[in-house]
Amino acid sequence: MKSRRREFLKQTAILGSGVFLLSEDHQARAEQNQQKPGTNADRRQNGTLKTIHALRTIHGNFTDRPIPEPALQAVLQACVRAANASNNQSYAIIVVKDRKRMAQICGYSGSCLLVFCADYNRIKTEAELMGYRFDPGNMEFFVTASTNTVLAAQTAVIAAKSMGIDSLLTNGIHRGDMGRLWQLLSLPEKHCFPIIALVLGYPASEPASLKGRLTGTGVIHTDNYHRLTQQETGELIRKYDEPDEHLGLRDDWTAKGYKHYLDWYFKEWAGSADGEESQILRVLKLAGFVEAGKGTARPKA
Amino acid sequence: MKSRRREFLKQTAILGSGVFLLSEDHQARAEQNQQKPGTNADRRQNGTLKTIHALRTIHGNFTDRPIPEPALQAVLQACVRAANASNNQSYAIIVVKDRKRMAQICGYSGSCLLVFCADYNRIKTEAELMGYRFDPGNMEFFVTASTNTVLAAQTAVIAAKSMGIDSLLTNGIHRGDMGRLWQLLSLPEKHCFPIIALVLGYPASEPASLKGRLTGTGVIHTDNYHRLTQQETGELIRKYDEPDEHLGLRDDWTAKGYKHYLDWYFKEWAGSADGEESQILRVLKLAGFVEAGKGTARPKA
Repeated sequence: MKSRRREFLKQTAILGSGVFLLSEDHQARAEQNQQKPGTNADRRQNGTLKTIHALRTIHGNFTDRPIPEPALQAVLQACVRAANASNNQSYAIIVVKDRKRMAQICGYSGSCLLVFCADYNRIKTEAELMGYRFDPGNMEFFVTASTNTVLAAQTAVIAAKSMGIDSLLTNGIHRGDMGRLWQLLSLPEKHCFPIIALVLGYPASEPASLKGRLTGTGVIHTDNYHRLTQQETGELIRKYDEPDEHLGLRDDWTAKGYKHYLDWYFKEWAGSADGEESQILRVLKLAGFVEAGKGTARPKA
Repeated sequence: MKSRRREFLKQTAILGSGVFLLSEDHQARAEQNQQKPGTNADRRQNGTLKTIHALRTIHGNFTDRPIPEPALQAVLQACVRAANASNNQSYAIIVVKDRKRMAQICGYSGSCLLVFCADYNRIKTEAELMGYRFDPGNMEFFVTASTNTVLAAQTAVIAAKSMGIDSLLTNGIHRGDMGRLWQLLSLPEKHCFPIIALVLGYPASEPASLKGRLTGTGVIHTDNYHRLTQQETGELIRKYDEPDEHLGLRDDWTAKGYKHYLDWYFKEWAGSADGEESQILRVLKLAGFVEAGKGTARPKA
């Protein structure tokens, strides 16, 4: 990865944000409609949607205030309710409360850190005790477990936010030497891989603005994948330049002499594959999730 | 994958479920506390947590009732609010409303299908028009995009449920010949990969029971990864046998002569890597997400 990403560790967290807050009037009315699909009142204003639209990322500046244990337990009990393949819950959630260890693990600290790992070791241990062979050692198992893991992680984010607890989802665990994670967290050598870190806490200050999102062309496709026209691409490039859209990671790209935000993004931020093996592929191989490949034939259409 | 999975396609969907429904009294009281972290009332009973705990999977038996367009739009507008790395929204969400096509794509149909794909083609197209080189061709880019994609998918699930719309998350897109997805959905050849399919709709009948979850040992770990003792493993094996826990995929394992549910699971259900290249790895290579690996050295601890 050739990029200046590491210079900006503080800003590399996965961005969450919110876009609007509805009045309590609206909320009360909308809550009456929640779970009643037949009602005609505005469906976009129930408490859950309000919680989702209020999501935002706190970039490390959390206060020292602890999360009450019942609230943390409520987050954990809620997050496992996410759907998961064959109900095998192929993940491990590691709860870390020591701030120094949080920073060592993911580069950030808050009131609590949840490390969401794809993990088959519980299931493997059950199989071994019962005398069965169970080998989750290929990419299909990895993608399945990774999906289960992230479904749970986002459920934790939304559950926490509903109780006024903000969050930071970060792939900081994939930066630096990932071997530290196996040491710091005593991870099993095989068939376990940390996917995402979730820092929970209360913000020391409100973010200056809530990040925007692309919500249409280029992201939402109807019936088929839509290839962008040159005109649509130009419109998207200009959309990132609009201050009110808040799509960019920073606002000083004009001061730096760039014509477009995406000039800054592609020149100074975005990494690019460089032909070298990425650490993630190397570690996935060590964890036993990348089977030896034989064929490279195109799948039949 | 050696298993009898394909015999049970109807049951291979990713399982979601709910565990309890709180009274409207509780909900109204709890909603007042939502987003107010300082309050002392029970934090576990707000509307969002209620929505999460009511999640369940509908296994294909959806009614013909359409989802009102404003509700579908609310789901789409909510799901993109999920956090995502560098705010690059490296995903494509393809909305499919034709029931026959839904079944061809994922094996199920409902009122609407959302196919969540990891996708860098929008960003690549922007880079190309601006004259930059941007190559997302390695496993690090894949894991990052896959995570972004699933964070959005689960946000869609929760947003839909808050409006009374049930769901089925399925990896049916990874079964059969995955080449069909490129044909059926006109997917870009490179740097796009369908991660998860979300069928939305209204159930024709209520599920007989809501699936349970493991909520402690083996799933939640404190400070460090906890390796199961033999006693703990035995307790987990027996837990799957408890009818009231609803942890299993089916109840007829005793009738089939098995001592434990997990006997059925490991003998008749769970696949196992067999040394062959999985279709997923093959397709990820074709999509350009698996770089040629050179080193297999252990990461430094």
